[in-house]
Amino acid sequence: MAHVPRDDDAVTDAADAVQAANVAFYAAFEARDLDAMAEVWERSERASVTHPGWPRLSGWGKVAGSWDAIFRHTPFIQFVLTDERVDVAGDTAWVTLDENILQAAGTEEGAESEASLSGARVAATNLFVRDGDDWRMVMHHGSPVGAEDNG
Amino acid sequence: MAHVPRDDDAVTDAADAVQAANVAFYAAFEARDLDAMAEVWERSERASVTHPGWPRLSGWGKVAGSWDAIFRHTPFIQFVLTDERVDVAGDTAWVTLDENILQAAGTEEGAESEASLSGARVAATNLFVRDGDDWRMVMHHGSPVGAEDNG
Repeated sequence: MAHVPRDDDAVTDAADAVQAANVAFYAAFEARDLDAMAEVWERSERASVTHPGWPRLSGWGKVAGSWDAIFRHTPFIQFVLTDERVDVAGDTAWVTLDENILQAAGTEEGAESEASLSGARVAATNLFVRDGDDWRMVMHHGSPVGAEDNG
Repeated sequence: MAHVPRDDDAVTDAADAVQAANVAFYAAFEARDLDAMAEVWERSERASVTHPGWPRLSGWGKVAGSWDAIFRHTPFIQFVLTDERVDVAGDTAWVTLDENILQAAGTEEGAESEASLSGARVAATNLFVRDGDDWRMVMHHGSPVGAEDNG
């Protein structure tokens, strides 16, 4: 799904690789697997994440800490991704999509409970940079759709 | 404020140019000047914007329409930008920052009123691509800080 009109084959290959990295990101999230999540990311100072409603966290240490906290407090989460679009520009690429989320809010050691399942929609931007043959996520920004502030 | 550890002079120049483009974006926003905003952007199909609480809008037509609507409904807006960081990777660059916003919510032809001033904080990601000597915004994503959904 490349949208950049130059060097079509190379861009299509890159777009496929970026899309695979993006799939790996959501697989790690659904599995709540911190090691798999670390593999997806560029573990650098410039890595940053903005979870829905959270302030930005910068640097891999804080990014990893946020995933650890989210995974511990999320007994179940499932994503249906819609309106996905991949754009490649040289060694950088960004994916925009909607995350349609089904999740259970848990306690620290929370057991999964169907009674607490809830849905949400998040507009997400995922930024990747090329690392040899791989693409690493360097920025994830998710924002709740439907909040009131249009500032 | 380049953070990329290669070819330092070129990257610093690029980071300065990106920062200038970022300043022009907020100047156009504060001035509520659609022509100036159009100059900032890459007016392309891949251009996209996610305003705080809004779904993503893709393509320059929809992006421009959103600025027009926001400008018509915002008699006054002022930004204090904090925690700004510029990262350049080749012909792509991203700026992350916090928008500390003072604004007046207005009606269609709304007159400015001090009584209706309100504050908000938005975590923003601004993505730029090089266009000759210029850098054009290709993606703006702003999300309200302090919303409850951590999905």
